[in-house]
Formats: sequence, C-alpha cells, structure tokens
Amino acid sequence: MAQTTDRYSQLVASGPGAAIAARLGLPRPEPLRRFVPGQPALDGPVLVGGVGRLVEALREQLAVHGLAEPDAPRFGALVLDATGITDVEGLQQLHTFFHPVLRRLAPSGRVVVLGTAPEHTATVDESVAQRALEGFTRSLAKEQVRGATTQLVHVAPGAGIDQLESTLRFLLSGRSAFVDGQVVRVGSPSPTDHPDAPADRDRPLAGKVAVVTGAARGIGAAIAEVLARDGAHVVCADVPAAGEALSATANAVGGTSLALDVTGPDAGAVLAEHLLTRHGGVDVVVHNAGITRDKKLVNMDADRWTSVMAVNLLAPQRITAALLAAGALRDGGRVVGVSSLAGIAGNAGQTSYAASKAGVIGLVQALAPELATRRVTINAVAPGFIETAMTAAIPLVTREGGRRLSSLGQGGLSVDVAETVAWFASPGSAAVTGQVVRVCGQSLLGA
Amino acid sequence: MAQTTDRYSQLVASGPGAAIAARLGLPRPEPLRRFVPGQPALDGPVLVGGVGRLVEALREQLAVHGLAEPDAPRFGALVLDATGITDVEGLQQLHTFFHPVLRRLAPSGRVVVLGTAPEHTATVDESVAQRALEGFTRSLAKEQVRGATTQLVHVAPGAGIDQLESTLRFLLSGRSAFVDGQVVRVGSPSPTDHPDAPADRDRPLAGKVAVVTGAARGIGAAIAEVLARDGAHVVCADVPAAGEALSATANAVGGTSLALDVTGPDAGAVLAEHLLTRHGGVDVVVHNAGITRDKKLVNMDADRWTSVMAVNLLAPQRITAALLAAGALRDGGRVVGVSSLAGIAGNAGQTSYAASKAGVIGLVQALAPELATRRVTINAVAPGFIETAMTAAIPLVTREGGRRLSSLGQGGLSVDVAETVAWFASPGSAAVTGQVVRVCGQSLLGA
Repeated sequence: MAQTTDRYSQLVASGPGAAIAARLGLPRPEPLRRFVPGQPALDGPVLVGGVGRLVEALREQLAVHGLAEPDAPRFGALVLDATGITDVEGLQQLHTFFHPVLRRLAPSGRVVVLGTAPEHTATVDESVAQRALEGFTRSLAKEQVRGATTQLVHVAPGAGIDQLESTLRFLLSGRSAFVDGQVVRVGSPSPTDHPDAPADRDRPLAGKVAVVTGAARGIGAAIAEVLARDGAHVVCADVPAAGEALSATANAVGGTSLALDVTGPDAGAVLAEHLLTRHGGVDVVVHNAGITRDKKLVNMDADRWTSVMAVNLLAPQRITAALLAAGALRDGGRVVGVSSLAGIAGNAGQTSYAASKAGVIGLVQALAPELATRRVTINAVAPGFIETAMTAAIPLVTREGGRRLSSLGQGGLSVDVAETVAWFASPGSAAVTGQVVRVCGQSLLGA
Repeated sequence: MAQTTDRYSQLVASGPGAAIAARLGLPRPEPLRRFVPGQPALDGPVLVGGVGRLVEALREQLAVHGLAEPDAPRFGALVLDATGITDVEGLQQLHTFFHPVLRRLAPSGRVVVLGTAPEHTATVDESVAQRALEGFTRSLAKEQVRGATTQLVHVAPGAGIDQLESTLRFLLSGRSAFVDGQVVRVGSPSPTDHPDAPADRDRPLAGKVAVVTGAARGIGAAIAEVLARDGAHVVCADVPAAGEALSATANAVGGTSLALDVTGPDAGAVLAEHLLTRHGGVDVVVHNAGITRDKKLVNMDADRWTSVMAVNLLAPQRITAALLAAGALRDGGRVVGVSSLAGIAGNAGQTSYAASKAGVIGLVQALAPELATRRVTINAVAPGFIETAMTAAIPLVTREGGRRLSSLGQGGLSVDVAETVAWFASPGSAAVTGQVVRVCGQSLLGA
C-alpha cells in the first residue's frame, strides 16, 4: 500500500509529537488528502462556473461529485470555464466567480481554470486575456491555504470533454495532491483517437504492460506500485546490483523483474527483445532511472559529467529509439520521462544533472509530434522536493528549506510523482502529450 | 547621472560601514560593474570557443575587447559558440571549454553561450542537446560568484553577427549587470531589415523620439535618462498629479513632459496627436506606468481588480493600438512593455497585478508577428527585486529576503531595467522581438 503521509507530518500531526512541535514552534503542514481507492475523490461538491464552450459538458461530467450552488456551505472544488473570456474586461469574471466562494473551499480543495492556449486564440484581445490567466492561477495557488491547489488547463479548440476526462480525474482528486500552480495542456483529438472510457475505471491499465527503469527503490518503486494498482503488469527494471530490492518490488506489485544496465550499448535491444518475447510488446515506458554526481563545474571532473549524461539522458533517448525501431512499443503507447526542477530552473552544483534533465524536456518536446502519428504520447514529470531516502540524508536546515519553499509548505511523497505518471499513462490521456508537469507543491523556485 | 550602486551596497562596501557590517555579520554583496560611457565594456579580454557556425565572426566582432588564449591569467568574458553541438555527446564541450577557465573569470565577468532554439534544429538529437544547454547555463549562473553572469542566446539559423551585435553589446558589458541566467532569442533578419550600425555607437538613438509613461519617478525616470543618454529625445509622460516631479525628469534628460492619464478613454489618440504634431511621430514607446493594489483575492474588492487591469494592461494595449492606427509609430519602431516576476511566477496577494503583468507577456507575444511586418519590435522587461522608493518601504527582513533570493545576492537598480529597455530600443535590435527578459539577478523565484 502506497505511503500517503510523510514521517515528519505524521510526527507533528498527532499525540506527543504535536505537543513537542508546538513547544518548539515547528511548522505543522496541512496533511494532504491523497487518493485512496473506494473513497470519494473530493471532500465536497463542485461549483462549476463560466460561460465558455465547455461549461455544459463540465456540469454533466462532474455531476458524479455532486454539483454545488454558489451559496453552498462548503466546496470540494471550484471549476471555472474561462474559455469564454475574450478580452481583458472579461477577466473580471475571475474576481466575480472566485472572490465570494474561496473561503468555503474545503481543505485539500481543488481549483481548476480551463482556458485556451494563447497561440490557439482568434484575436490579440483574446490572446492577451488568456495569457493573463496564467499570472492569476499561479498567484491564487500561492494564496491558497490548507492543502488546496490551483491549476490552469489549456484546452485545445477541438478538444471536448472526452479529451479532458482523464486530466480532470487527476486534478480533481488526491492523485494530484502535490501538483500545484501548474499549467497543463490538453490537445485536440487525433482522427484515429479512441478516447473511450476504459472498461474498468478503477483499473484503467488492465491488460497493459508497463516497464519502469530504476524500479528497485524510491520513486521508481512507487511508480511500479501505482501502475500495478491501476491494472498494469509491471516489468521492474534496475541495475544488476539492485538485486533483492528489485525482486522485492516486483513481487510486491505482482510484476516481474529485469536486471538491466540502461547505459549498456545494447540496453534498448535487450529490453525490446525481452518485452516482445515475454509480453508481445509494451504499452507504458517510464524512464525513471537517474543519478546525480554533484560538483560545481569548476571542480567537476569529466567522468562525472559523462556518467550523468549517460544514465539520465542518453539512456532514455536510445531506449525509446530502440523500442520504436524494434516495434516493441505498441500503438497507443505512453512514454514518460523524469525531468526535475533543476532541469527547469538550474541548480548550483548540478550543471550536468540540470543539463541532462533539461535534455529530457527537449526529448519530450522533440518526439511528441513524431510519436503522435502512432498515437503514442510522451510526457515528463519534474519532481521538486520529494521525501525519499535520498532527501532524508540532506542536512536538516536545507531539508526544511526545501520543504518550506513551496506553496504547500512540505515535501511531496514518491506516490505523488507516481500518480502523475499514472495520469500520463492512462488510456484516457491520448490528448496529453509534450507536457512537462512539475510535482513540487508549487515550489517557489523556477525560471 | 544614473545611480550605479545601491545605498546598502555603498554602506557595507567601505569605511566605517564595512567594519560595522563585518561585526554584525551582514552580507556584503559584490559591487556590480555597471556601464559607464567611455570606460571599457569588459574588465579583461574575451575567450571565444566552440565549433559552431558563428565562431569565426564572433572572434572578429569581439576582437575590440581583446581576444584571450585559454592560458590567459584573467578573462573579462567567456563566449562559447555551442551552435555546433548536435547531440548529447557533444555537450561534453561545455565541460571541456568552461571547467579549466572559470576560476580566472574576472569579477562581474560574463559568460555567454550561443545556441539554436530547439524548434529550429534539424534532428531530434540536436534538439535534445540544444534544450540541455538551458539547464546548463541556468545552473552555471547559480554557481558563478563575484557578480559574474551567464546567459544563453538562441540564434536563429538565418541570423548572423549583424543581428547579434546589439545583444552581445548588451550582454558583454555592465549594461546587463543585473540580468542573469536568462535565455534570449535573436531572430532571423527580415528581407527589409537594415541592421547597419548607427552612425554614432555611443548615441545609437540619436535623432529618435521616445515616449516613456510613468516617467516622473523611479524606474520610469531611469528609462528616460538612459534613452536620453543614448541620444533620444524623450517625451516624459505621467499623470497630471505627478506635476513637478515630471517636469524635473523631463528637464534633467533634456526632454519634454506630457501630462497624460493612460487610462483615459482617449489617451492613445491624445498621445498620437501630440507625437505627430510635435515630433512627426515616435520611434520608441515604453509602457512603464503601473500600479499595485495588493490584497488576497478572498479580501479584494472589485475596484482594486479593475484599476490594476486598466493601468497595467488595458492602457498599453489600447495606446499601442491607437498609435498604430494613427500612423504615429514609425516603421522600424520599438515597443517595450514592463512585465514582472509576479507575471511569470505569480505572487500571493497579487492576483490582479500578476494577471495584468502576465497579460503584458501575452501582448508582446501576440503582437510580435503582426508588428514584424512593419519592422516594429515589441518586447518586455520583467523586473525582479529593484531598489526603489517603493521597495525601501518594505519591512527589513522581507526586503533582505528579496535581495538574498537571487544569484547575485542583492537587489537591482532602476538603471538595470533602463539599460535592458535601451537594448530593446536600439536600432541594432531589429531581430530581437517577442522577448520577455527578466532583470532580477537570477532571482530563484520562478515558474
């Protein structure tokens, strides 16, 4: 069972820990509401507003959560269709809709604004107003309290509620607990798109085969776990040295394990062969394996540079190419990379790591149009401060800084990254490609 | 004469202030080398490296600063042509070039990496490698010490040294003292482009007419001053209430003053009429006037929302349209907006301000292609923490936080914003359009 709270939060949230925390003046971050199968996605009904092209379909789609009136005592989520805002005066709708109701949003409540990407607008006026939404939602995300999150979704003009469903499902639930202040894009349906709902909503990956690299521990193990929960058979890959930890993960998720050095010259061919022989192919590929070799550039030897590039960037690039060349990645497949906040904002001591993680963004953006012709999507997660064995080793003050420098005032969990990967992997996410989504609690750090 | 150091830095840099600062453990940020007419742009020779398409022209262009060999004792700047990097293995050049020489970069030294925008590359491999450069340069910027800065310049495939000249002039001098960790783009020359060097390099705006709104004080006054220094006649506009402060600015810069409420329904028409009648038109328009009415959205009344939108976003949009409609903006003109870090990253308590400043980015991006047909460029500066009368009123701890949360460890000066505007305004910047450049000392805050 995936961990749904971190040890620090457990410690300060109850019993003697709470008393000690209060005495010492330690922060007590809001416990985030995370996804638990069988429990309601939201902690209250949804208020839907706006006058855009999606609002009627939204009401229908979201009725399952219960639709609220503006005078309701409590909201689980506030969803505004802002696609109808075509000029700066129209932005007043943001104030009109949100101002009176914000105070009644439940803890871990959700705000989602739907807009149109500026380059998809019809006029300069509309483009300006739609671009303004981004400044608004990122600010509102920083104002929200008690674990509530705020996102902007750019919906392509041709996209309808079918293309949106998987994204709303993700954002309007505890699956997106640590995703905050993001702008995500849902594209147009392709002519060959089949956005039919999966047979079993609770197991959207039933019958699918996934491979996760670096699966033995930490975030990789959590990704394997969540993909398996969603119904996939997961091939857990890691370096031969991972040994028993890898087997343990594979066993725990009912999957299989594969010893694989992703930097080996024939890693892609070996993986393709394995997947074709054992499973007839693969549907979901998660390039999670990654290393750091931190040093300031002025003190960095050439080997540190090379090894980081080899694992973090060359391996995902070459393995993806090999799977495609071998016909191992099935049509309708999903490729997910792991970038990093450092790849977006840069980080002192991480020139090589940040270059490799920026390169992952490049890979996603370069391959997305090409893969779209095969109905394959490629996306990346960019984790911020995630509580792992690695971050537990960081000195206390730095670690607390990493937690506190985010709108949610805490670190995320591996499961938060995994849920984001599962959203990309879902069959309903056919129109989500070329995206880089931060899983960082709206870390204040950025570019 | 523009201020070239802030009061805090003056205080802790010399005499008794230094002793007190040392006793109290106060930070002593590196004094930044700012531009002074007649002094050398750089504090040492330039090391040029790389194997790209621009390197030979670069050497010729930069010979004026003196070209260094790799074993020189000190460098004023390190410039790498990375346009020849076409795959991830090629990124090793970054390590090979920079690692051995970084320690010998002078205080306030400059690092510039020239690359190709990922969408202009020929292959996936090249796209990935070029995207990686961004993670590298943003990290190196965070590692640099003693006032040195690092930038990435994306040079369009058709662009040559003529298109680059004004940008290199800006980046390789004290003009860009507080611009750090940025990615800027130099586009292709248009068929009607005349990138001829101005007659007088020290007065590139000689014979040009500029208008600056909000020019009475602060950043607006500094913009007026720098544009006048560069040779322009500056029409200083501000609200009627600005009265004597406006006249004082206009007199100090040898310009003229114009009382103008930018939110007036006929503000654009009045301004166009004034410029056409008195000056036969205008070459440079700087939309600097701006206000804040900060409140969390949950506490914000509708009027605060409306007034911020009116001044910060509707006014630049309407005035630009009116100047174009009246034929007052001459071909080859320059429009410059003022965005903000808040418009990029969002800020708590600033939903309206951030929306308006994000809208300015939308205006720049939406109008750039349209204006390019008239050889008019449109760009924006996005100031971070700038030392002004406004920021001097911020409580000490918050103010120190704003200064410290940047790679340069200090606030910027109004002149830093003004120099960036002057770069956009320069006749040599015909290929610089649709850009939003942060003037923030690489503030760690971002999106």
